[in-house]
Amino acid sequence: MALVVQKYGGSSVADAESIKRVAQRIVSTKRDGHDVVVVVSAMGDTTDELIDLANKVSPLPPARELDMLLTSGERISMALLAMAIANLGHEARSFTGSQAGVITDGTHGRARIIDVTPGRIRDAIDDGSIAIVAGFQGVSQDSKDITTLGRGGSDTTAVALAAALGADVCEIYTDVDGIFTADPRIVPAARRIPDISYEEMMEMAACGAKILHLRCVEYARRYGMPIHVRSSFSHKTGTWVKNSIEGSQMEQAIISGVAHDRSEAKITVVGVPDKVGEAATIFSTLADAEINIDMIVQNVSAAATNRTDISFTLPRTDGQTAIKALNKIKERIGFDSLRYDDQIGKVSLIGAGMRSHPGVTAKFFGSIADAGVNIEMISTSEIRISVVVDQDDVDAAVTAAHRAFDLDADQVEAVVYGGSGR
Amino acid sequence: MALVVQKYGGSSVADAESIKRVAQRIVSTKRDGHDVVVVVSAMGDTTDELIDLANKVSPLPPARELDMLLTSGERISMALLAMAIANLGHEARSFTGSQAGVITDGTHGRARIIDVTPGRIRDAIDDGSIAIVAGFQGVSQDSKDITTLGRGGSDTTAVALAAALGADVCEIYTDVDGIFTADPRIVPAARRIPDISYEEMMEMAACGAKILHLRCVEYARRYGMPIHVRSSFSHKTGTWVKNSIEGSQMEQAIISGVAHDRSEAKITVVGVPDKVGEAATIFSTLADAEINIDMIVQNVSAAATNRTDISFTLPRTDGQTAIKALNKIKERIGFDSLRYDDQIGKVSLIGAGMRSHPGVTAKFFGSIADAGVNIEMISTSEIRISVVVDQDDVDAAVTAAHRAFDLDADQVEAVVYGGSGR
Repeated sequence: MALVVQKYGGSSVADAESIKRVAQRIVSTKRDGHDVVVVVSAMGDTTDELIDLANKVSPLPPARELDMLLTSGERISMALLAMAIANLGHEARSFTGSQAGVITDGTHGRARIIDVTPGRIRDAIDDGSIAIVAGFQGVSQDSKDITTLGRGGSDTTAVALAAALGADVCEIYTDVDGIFTADPRIVPAARRIPDISYEEMMEMAACGAKILHLRCVEYARRYGMPIHVRSSFSHKTGTWVKNSIEGSQMEQAIISGVAHDRSEAKITVVGVPDKVGEAATIFSTLADAEINIDMIVQNVSAAATNRTDISFTLPRTDGQTAIKALNKIKERIGFDSLRYDDQIGKVSLIGAGMRSHPGVTAKFFGSIADAGVNIEMISTSEIRISVVVDQDDVDAAVTAAHRAFDLDADQVEAVVYGGSGR
Repeated sequence: MALVVQKYGGSSVADAESIKRVAQRIVSTKRDGHDVVVVVSAMGDTTDELIDLANKVSPLPPARELDMLLTSGERISMALLAMAIANLGHEARSFTGSQAGVITDGTHGRARIIDVTPGRIRDAIDDGSIAIVAGFQGVSQDSKDITTLGRGGSDTTAVALAAALGADVCEIYTDVDGIFTADPRIVPAARRIPDISYEEMMEMAACGAKILHLRCVEYARRYGMPIHVRSSFSHKTGTWVKNSIEGSQMEQAIISGVAHDRSEAKITVVGVPDKVGEAATIFSTLADAEINIDMIVQNVSAAATNRTDISFTLPRTDGQTAIKALNKIKERIGFDSLRYDDQIGKVSLIGAGMRSHPGVTAKFFGSIADAGVNIEMISTSEIRISVVVDQDDVDAAVTAAHRAFDLDADQVEAVVYGGSGR
C-alpha cells in the first residue's frame, strides 16, 4: 500500500463526463489499496473565462482580487470531482489551497510556496477518505489573503503536497504518454523517454518542453520526490522523473532529447560602454521589473569604440515591460539603442555528460548548419546546449538534431502532444 | 459619517454592466463620507448553473461538497465587484464568509450563524477600504468546513455583519422600491409602506412577502438593527424596518398589508386517536426530518370515534419527505390515512393591534366571503390573520382584503415586483 498523489490538469476535467472518467481512475487506484490525494486544476477554459470577466469590469484588476476570482475555478472542479467520487461509493473531501495548508508569500499572481502543513489532508487520509486539493492556490503567510501560484502552479502544488505528506510518488496526468525526445508534432519519430533525471528534466522544461514546468521539477528534485508523468487516457507507464539512474554508462554522453521554445524574444542593448558594472545595472533593472532573463550573450567590445552589445532572451510577454524599464536607464548607462526581435526560436539539446564530450557540441552545430539554419546565439550548461535561430527554422533544426543523435524511433509512439494546463 | 452595510442580490450583479453600476452606487455612498461594507450574492443564475453541473456529476451530491461548489459563486461576484470599485479609484477588498468571520454550525446547505467576528472587515474599514463580503456563506465552527446559510442567507449575512460591526443601517437593495401593502402584480393600487416594525415585517415575510426573508428580520429584531429596503435602480427612500413607531395611534389597529404565499402544501393526518402525545409524536417526527411546519389546525375529535384530524401546512418542496416520514410512524400512531393537497394558497392580513379589535377579523373574513372564496384553514397571531384558500382564489382574496381595509392608493407607486435572490 502506497500513498499516491495524482494531479489532473484542466483538460482532464473539462466537463462533467471527463470529471466522471477521472473519478473512476482515482477510485480504481484507491481500490488497488492505495491512499490517494488528488490535486486538480480548474475546468478547461474556466480561468480564461474568468479573466475575460475581470477585464470587462476593470482594465487593470488588482492582483489580490484577481487571485480571489481565479481561485473559484479550482473550487468548482474540486467539489465536482469529490461529488463524482462519492457517487462511486467512496468518501471524498475537497480542500482549498488554504485548507490544505499551502502557505505562500504575498506575491499575488505568482506566489511562492513557503510551507505546506497538510494536517487536514492527513486527517482525511487517516479517515479513509480521498482528499481532493485545489491546485494553483495557497494562502499568504502574512496577510492571510488568497494567492495563486502562477504558471506551473498546479503541478507544483502536487509535488509540494506529495513531499510534505511523504508520498511514494507524484503522478502528473496529462494528455500524452510521457516526455518525448522531441515534440512529436515536429518529429514524428520521437520516442517516449522512460526515465529522466531531475537535472535533465529541468533543462528540458526550461527549454520549452511544456509537459512539466521547471518549477515543479525543481521542487521535486529538492525533496527527491519521484514524478511519474503519464496519460490520463491509458494505463501505460509514462516517464519517471527521479534521481539519475545509477550504473548505466556513467561516463558516456547520454542525449535525452531535443527541446524547443517559440515563446521568447531577444533584446539587444547596442553600444553599451565597456565599464565595470554596466551589465549589472542592466540586469538588476530587469530583475526589479520582475523579468526572468534566459540566455545572455555579451560580445567582446570593439577596440575602437570601447563599446559592446549585450543580447538576452526573455519571455515574449515581458518584452514591452523590459523595453520600458531599459529606456528609463538609457541616459544613466549611456547605451546607443535597443533592438527587439520576437521572431526567434530556441532549440536545445539535453543530455548528461555532454560537456566532457566536445564531439556532442560539434555534431549539434553541424546538424543545424547542414539543415541550412543560421545560429544567432549560443548558450551552454553541463547538460544542455541551446541555440537561438529564426522562428521559421525551428522545425528544421529540431528535426536535424534529433536525427543526428539517433533519437528517431523505429516506431512512432506518440499520437498527440500538447501543453499541460496551469 | 455613518457605517453603512449594503446588500446587493444576484439580479443586481447579474453581468459586468450591472456590477459596474453597483460599484458606482457604492462609491457614491463612500464619497458622501460614509464607511461602507457590502454583502453580495452570486451573479444572476450562477447558483442554478452550478447546481446543474453538480447534478450532471452526481444525482445526490454530498452536502459538504455542494456547499464548496456553490460558494464559488459569491467568490466570483465579490472579486469582480472589488475590481470595479478599484477601477473607480477606491480601494476595495473582498472577503469570503470565512474570512469575514461568519461562524456557523455544521449543517451544510442551511447552516445557522453562531457568531460573527469581523476583525478583518474592521481592519479594512479602518484602512479606508470598502469591504466586500460574500453573502450566503460561512465556516463551520467545529469542522472548519465551508457552509452555506440556505434561503435568505445573503440578507441574513448583511444584517448579522451590520449588527456585529455596530453599523448605523443595513440597506437591502432589490429591484422594487420597498415593501408594499400587497403584491402590485395582483393589486395595482398597492402602496409602498414607509415604516414597518420588525414584528409586522416578520409576519409579512413568514406569509409570503418575498422581499425580505423571515430569518433576516428575526436577526435584525434581536439586535435592533434598522433595515432599509430600497431599489438599486433609484435613490428614493424605500421601506424602513425598525422598532415599532412610537406615539402613532398606539391603540388603533394599523393594518400594514396583505401578504400571500403559493409555495405551501397542506397535509391532513386523518383519524388520529385522541390520546395524549399523539400530536407531539407527529410533529417531532417532522422536526427530525427538518421540516418547518407553518399552520397547524386540529379539529375537535368526533365523540363517536374518539379520533381527530390534524391538518398542517408546510413548504411544498418538503411535501414528499413529510409524507414518507409520517408513513413510517403510521402503525405506531394508528392514524387512518394521509391527505396531501398542493393546490392551496395562503392569504394573510398583517397589522398591529388587531387582536384587540375583533372587527378586523370579521371584516377580513367578510371581504373574502364577499369575493366568493371558501376558507379552508385559519390561523391567527397578535398581529396577523392567515387563511388557507384554493390556489386559484388567492388573487381574488388579496384584492378583496386590500380594498376592504382601505389600503388602495390613489396613485400606483409600484411598477415591478419580484422576489429577491438568496
